[in-house]
Amino acid sequence: MYGAGDVRIDNVPDAGLVEPTDALLRVTRACICGSDLWPYNQMEHSETGQRMGHEFIGVVEAAGAEVRSVKPGDLVVAPFAWSDGTCDFCREGLHTSCLNGGWWARNGIDGGQGDAVRVPQADGTLVVLPVGPDDALMPSLLTLSDVMGTGHHAALAARVAPGKTAAVVGDGAVGLCGVIAAKRLGAEQIILLGRHPDRIALARDFGATDVVRERGDEAVERVRELTGGFGAHSVLECVGHGESMVTALGIARPGGAVGRVGLPQHEPIPTTMRTFFDNVTIGGGPAPARAYIEELLPDVLEGRIEPGRVFDRVTNLDGVPDGYRAMNEREAIKVLVEL
Amino acid sequence: MYGAGDVRIDNVPDAGLVEPTDALLRVTRACICGSDLWPYNQMEHSETGQRMGHEFIGVVEAAGAEVRSVKPGDLVVAPFAWSDGTCDFCREGLHTSCLNGGWWARNGIDGGQGDAVRVPQADGTLVVLPVGPDDALMPSLLTLSDVMGTGHHAALAARVAPGKTAAVVGDGAVGLCGVIAAKRLGAEQIILLGRHPDRIALARDFGATDVVRERGDEAVERVRELTGGFGAHSVLECVGHGESMVTALGIARPGGAVGRVGLPQHEPIPTTMRTFFDNVTIGGGPAPARAYIEELLPDVLEGRIEPGRVFDRVTNLDGVPDGYRAMNEREAIKVLVEL
Repeated sequence: MYGAGDVRIDNVPDAGLVEPTDALLRVTRACICGSDLWPYNQMEHSETGQRMGHEFIGVVEAAGAEVRSVKPGDLVVAPFAWSDGTCDFCREGLHTSCLNGGWWARNGIDGGQGDAVRVPQADGTLVVLPVGPDDALMPSLLTLSDVMGTGHHAALAARVAPGKTAAVVGDGAVGLCGVIAAKRLGAEQIILLGRHPDRIALARDFGATDVVRERGDEAVERVRELTGGFGAHSVLECVGHGESMVTALGIARPGGAVGRVGLPQHEPIPTTMRTFFDNVTIGGGPAPARAYIEELLPDVLEGRIEPGRVFDRVTNLDGVPDGYRAMNEREAIKVLVEL
Repeated sequence: MYGAGDVRIDNVPDAGLVEPTDALLRVTRACICGSDLWPYNQMEHSETGQRMGHEFIGVVEAAGAEVRSVKPGDLVVAPFAWSDGTCDFCREGLHTSCLNGGWWARNGIDGGQGDAVRVPQADGTLVVLPVGPDDALMPSLLTLSDVMGTGHHAALAARVAPGKTAAVVGDGAVGLCGVIAAKRLGAEQIILLGRHPDRIALARDFGATDVVRERGDEAVERVRELTGGFGAHSVLECVGHGESMVTALGIARPGGAVGRVGLPQHEPIPTTMRTFFDNVTIGGGPAPARAYIEELLPDVLEGRIEPGRVFDRVTNLDGVPDGYRAMNEREAIKVLVEL
C-alpha cells in the first residue's frame, strides 16, 4: 500500500530463512482484514510503500535448523501476530504481548498478502492443519488467523456465559464471528447491531436472535427494550469508532462488560459517570489468536462453526486492489485471496 | 454542607418511620469519607444545604411492620447505599444498582453524619453486628460501611489473586484498605503509590511490600523497575483524578486489570493505544459494600484484618466541620465520629 486507496502488486526480493527459528512459507490462502481499511482510507503517501496482510495459510517450504514443530510440506495457519510460545506472556495465553514476537508486514517482516512469507519464531507461531491445501474447510480455517479468534476474544472479554444476553456492535466480519463466538459460549439472547441485509441474514444463521438497525441513542433505547430495560450482560465492540464505543457502553447492563476488539480510532474511552456507577467493565484488545487456535480448530474441523461463511468474495493476488475497494464500499464483507 | 468549605451542624425534623419496610436508627458511629471532600472543595453555595454522611453504625430504635431481619435494640451497620436485597441486581451481588435502592443524604433520605437515620429497605440494607455498641472493634466494623468494602471491590475488579503483583494508587483510607484487601486475596508483591509518611507506615503494616513516592511518568518507571519491567497484574485506582488513572493505566502489566473505585473527576477514561494493545481491562465503580459485609465481617471480628486503623482522629458531632478541614488538609487520614 502506497497511500490511501493505492494498493499495488509489486515484486519484492524473495523471502528466505534468516534465523534458525524461521520457517519459509508458500502462501496458499490469504485475505483482507477490516483493519486494513483504516490505512486504505487514511494512509499518507509513501514512496517505499507498506507491505500488507496478516492472515494466511501456507505450505512450509523450508525450516531453520532449530525449528521442531513444523517441517517442509506441512500445511500451517499463522495467527496475525508471531510469537515464541515460550515467554511469560505466551505461557499466560497473551501471545500478542510476546517478548520476542511482533506483527506481520512491519519492521522488515513479510506481509501475508503475497506469495511467500518468512515466519519468525516458527515453532511458537505456526499450527499444522490436518487437511490438504485445497480442503473445502479452507475459508473457515483461514479465519483462525484473526477474525474468528478476534470474535472469540471479544466474547471472552465481554464475559459471555451460558444464559446471558450478548450484544454485538458491528456487522463486519469480526462482528459476525462475534455472534458465532457468543452462541458457542452459550449466550441465550444475541443482539446484532447492524444494518446491511446480507450481513444480518448471515448473523441470524450464526445465532443472532435479534437485530437492531438503529444507531446512536435510538440503538441504545432499542437494546434496552429488548433486554427488559437493563441492557446486555456482554457487549462485543467490533468496530473501533468512538461512536460505536459510546453505543457499546450505553447498552451494557449494570455489572456487565464490554469487550473491545475494533482497533480504536479514538484513544480515550468515552465513558461517562454512568459507566462508573453501573460498574461496567471494559476489556479487550488485539486477540491472542494463537492461543485460541487449538480451542477453535476442532469446532471448525467438525463443522460445528462455519466462520468461513464471512468470505463472500474470492480473488487472486492480482485481484487484491479491487478486493480492498469492494470491502471499503461494503460490496463485500470479506475477501479471500487464493494463491 | 452549604457549599465548599461550609459544613454546619443543624437541627432538622426528627427522623421517623415512613414505609413499613423502614427502620429508625440512632447513630452511634459515623465518619467522613474521602468522597465527601469533593463537594467540600467544589460545591456551589446552596440555601437549603445538603445532608452528608453515608457510613454509619447504629442501634435500631423502631422497625416498620414488614421488617423481619432487625428489631429494636439491635446494633447494625449500614452500607453506603441502601438496597432491597431481593431484586435482580442485589441477587447478583450488585447492590449499588438495586432497582429499589438509593443513596444516603440524597432525595429526602437522611445522611449518616447525624443523630438518627430513617433506613429504607431495612431488611435488605442492614446487617446486625454481634457485639455491643462500644466494642473495641467499632472502628473496623464501621469500615464495612464503605472504605474496606471499597478497597476490597478495587482488588476484585483488579483481579488480585494469589502470587500476583498488586499496585495501589493512592494512600488515602481507600488505598490503605486496598492494601489490606490485596494482601487478604493473596497478592505476593504489593506496591503502594503514595507520599505521606504516616500512611506509608500504616500501609507497610497492612502488607505493602514496596512504596513508590514518585508521581506521573517517574512513578510509572519506578513501578516497572519493581516488576521486572512489566508492570503490575492488578492496579487498584483509589483516587479518581484523571492523572491518577493515567498512572494506573501506565503501570498495568499487559493482560492486567485496573480496578477503579475513586469517584472519577474526569469522565472519559484516559486510555491510550497501549491500553488496547496490552489488553488491559478496566473495571470497578461504587462498591456493592452490602455484598461484602458477610464475607469481611468474620475477618474483622477475629482480628485478621484491622481496617479501623485508618481512623487516626476521633471527634463528636460538633467536631465534624473541623474533621472535614483536617482531612482536606491531610492532617487526618480519616475521621471517626462518636455520637
